[in-house]
Amino acid sequence: MDEFEVIRRYFQRDNKFTNDLVSVDSGDDCAVLKLPPGEEFCVSTDTLIEGVHFPMQASGTVAAARAMGANLSDLAAMGATPHSYTVALTIPEVNDSWLSEFSSTLAAVSQDNQMPLVGGNLAKGPLSITVTIMGRVSAGEALLRSGAHVDDDIYVSGCLGDAAGGLKMVLENIEDTAGFRSPLLNRYQSPTARISLGQSLTGLASACIDVSDGFLADLSHILKSSSVGACIELEKLPVSSSLTNLLGHDAALAAAASGGDDYELCFTAPKSLRKKIANLNDDLVLTRVGHVTAGADLIVHDAEGIAMTDYATDAGLRGYTHFK
Amino acid sequence: MDEFEVIRRYFQRDNKFTNDLVSVDSGDDCAVLKLPPGEEFCVSTDTLIEGVHFPMQASGTVAAARAMGANLSDLAAMGATPHSYTVALTIPEVNDSWLSEFSSTLAAVSQDNQMPLVGGNLAKGPLSITVTIMGRVSAGEALLRSGAHVDDDIYVSGCLGDAAGGLKMVLENIEDTAGFRSPLLNRYQSPTARISLGQSLTGLASACIDVSDGFLADLSHILKSSSVGACIELEKLPVSSSLTNLLGHDAALAAAASGGDDYELCFTAPKSLRKKIANLNDDLVLTRVGHVTAGADLIVHDAEGIAMTDYATDAGLRGYTHFK
Repeated sequence: MDEFEVIRRYFQRDNKFTNDLVSVDSGDDCAVLKLPPGEEFCVSTDTLIEGVHFPMQASGTVAAARAMGANLSDLAAMGATPHSYTVALTIPEVNDSWLSEFSSTLAAVSQDNQMPLVGGNLAKGPLSITVTIMGRVSAGEALLRSGAHVDDDIYVSGCLGDAAGGLKMVLENIEDTAGFRSPLLNRYQSPTARISLGQSLTGLASACIDVSDGFLADLSHILKSSSVGACIELEKLPVSSSLTNLLGHDAALAAAASGGDDYELCFTAPKSLRKKIANLNDDLVLTRVGHVTAGADLIVHDAEGIAMTDYATDAGLRGYTHFK
Repeated sequence: MDEFEVIRRYFQRDNKFTNDLVSVDSGDDCAVLKLPPGEEFCVSTDTLIEGVHFPMQASGTVAAARAMGANLSDLAAMGATPHSYTVALTIPEVNDSWLSEFSSTLAAVSQDNQMPLVGGNLAKGPLSITVTIMGRVSAGEALLRSGAHVDDDIYVSGCLGDAAGGLKMVLENIEDTAGFRSPLLNRYQSPTARISLGQSLTGLASACIDVSDGFLADLSHILKSSSVGACIELEKLPVSSSLTNLLGHDAALAAAASGGDDYELCFTAPKSLRKKIANLNDDLVLTRVGHVTAGADLIVHDAEGIAMTDYATDAGLRGYTHFK
C-alpha cells in the first residue's frame, strides 16, 4: 500500500460524514469551505506526539480521541461551533488495526460534532498527529482571553484533575479493580470538549480558556492577556470522589490546581451575571473558585483564607512545558 | 526557554505581518478570521519531515521555504488568493540560528504573500513542519481536478525537472563551480508557487493541479478525477538548459516526466481558449504538452509520435510514495 491507498482505505470511506458547508472535499489540492453570512472562522492547530501527549503503544482509539478532544476544546474556549478539520498523520508503518481504530474514532467524532474531515496529509515517520480544526462563530462574538475585568468571578466547569489521575493510572499501571477509577481513565483517554457550554457562554463570559496545561497555568494566560490578577480559593476547586479515592485529599487538590488535559473551561464573568450563569441549561456543574483582582498576581488561598505564598509559582503555574 | 518563550521570541515579533482579515491573531485559543462576502475558504495541510522532504541538517531557511512553497502551491492549483496560515513545528531542541532562519523566512513569505501567520503549535520531537494554509476564492470559481474534457489541451507552466536536478546536486554533493546550476538548486531549495498564474486561470482552465509528486503522477490525478485519459508528447516537456547541462537530454526529459517538487501548474483547457491562454499576462512560459483523450490511459509518445509502451507506468506514474 502506498499513502494514496492508505488514505482511500481508512479515510475516504463511503460513509464519511459531510455537510453543505463543504463545497469540495478532500481529494483535490485544497478543500473548499463555505461560511454562513455574518460569521467568522475560528482556526486552531494542535500536535500530539507519541510518548509526549499520549503513551507509547497507545491504541489508535486513544490517540484519535485525545487529538480530537484537545482540538475541539480550543473551539469550545472560543464559544465556536465545529465546522470541519484536517489531519496530518505521520506513522512509522502501515498498521491495520491501529489505523482502523484511529479512523473509526475520527469518523465517530465527525458524526457527533457534525464536522467533516476535509483533508490532511499522510507521511512516514515517528508517530505524530497534527489536527487543524475550524469552527464558526457570529462575527465579534468569540470568547477571548483578554476581556477579564477586576472583580469578575472566576468559574471552572466540571471537575479538575481527573485526567491527571487517569494518566497516573496509565503510567503506573494501576489496576482498576474497584471500578470507581474508570471515570479518571476515561477523562484522560477520551476527553469531552465543552462545546455546548462554550456556545452558551457567548455574551456572558468576559474571558475564557480551556484547561489543557493545568488550571493555574491556563488561568494565568487569561490574567496576562487581560492585564489583571486573581485570587483563587484552593478548597473550592471541584474535585471528583474518584480522584480523592485515588490520590487522597491534598494530592487531589494539587492535581486539580496543576494537572493538565482536563479540557474543562475556565472563564470569568461579571458578578451581575451570577443568576444567569447559575441558570444555564447545561448538564455540567459550574463552580465559582475565585475572583479577578487588580495587579498581576495570582494568589492562592487555603481553607482559612490565608495566602499560600509561592503556591502558584511553585506548583501550579508550572503546567506542562516543552524544552525545560 | 519553554515553548511559550520560544514562540514569543521567534514567532510573535513586533513586525509580524497582519491584515484586516484577521480579527484575532495567535495568542488566543483560536485565531478568528474574516472572509469577504461571496467568497469561499480553501484549506490544505502539508507535512515536511527532515530526511524525507528536506535533507538532514538543512538550514531553517530551506526548511521554511520548502514548507511554504509546497503549501502555497496547493492554493495556486485552486486559483486561490493566500489568506493566512498556521505552522505546527516539532523540533528536537531549541537551536537559535535554525529558529532565526526559519522564522525570518516565514516572515518574508508572509509579507510577500500578504498572508499572516495566525497560529500554530510548538512541541519537542523529531524535526517536522506541518503547515495548514488558507486561501480565498470567489464562490464556485475554484479550479478543480475533475473538470477535464476529451480534446482539451494539456499545459504545464515553466520548466519541469529542475527541482529533481537540484535535489541530485544536494544529495550527491555536486559543486556549483560553473554557476549555471544554481537555478536548479534554487528551484529545489526555495520553490515559487504559481499563485498569480492560478488566479488568472480561473474561468479558463477546466482542471488544474500542481506538480509536486512528478508531472505524470500528478496529471494522472486529474485524469482519474475527470474520468479521462491523455496523450503526452515527451519531447515537448519544457526542460531548462541548466537541467540538460547537468543530466544530458534523455535523463533531463525523464526528470521532467517524473521528478517531483517543481510546484509548476499542470492544467487542461478547451482548444477554443488557446489564444486567450497564450495572451495571459504572466511572466511564465506555458507549454502545450498533449491533449485529453477518451478512456483512462495515459500514453506517452516519443519524438516520432510512437507510443512508448509502459513508459508512464514504469517511470512516470511512480512519483514519490511513502510506505512502498
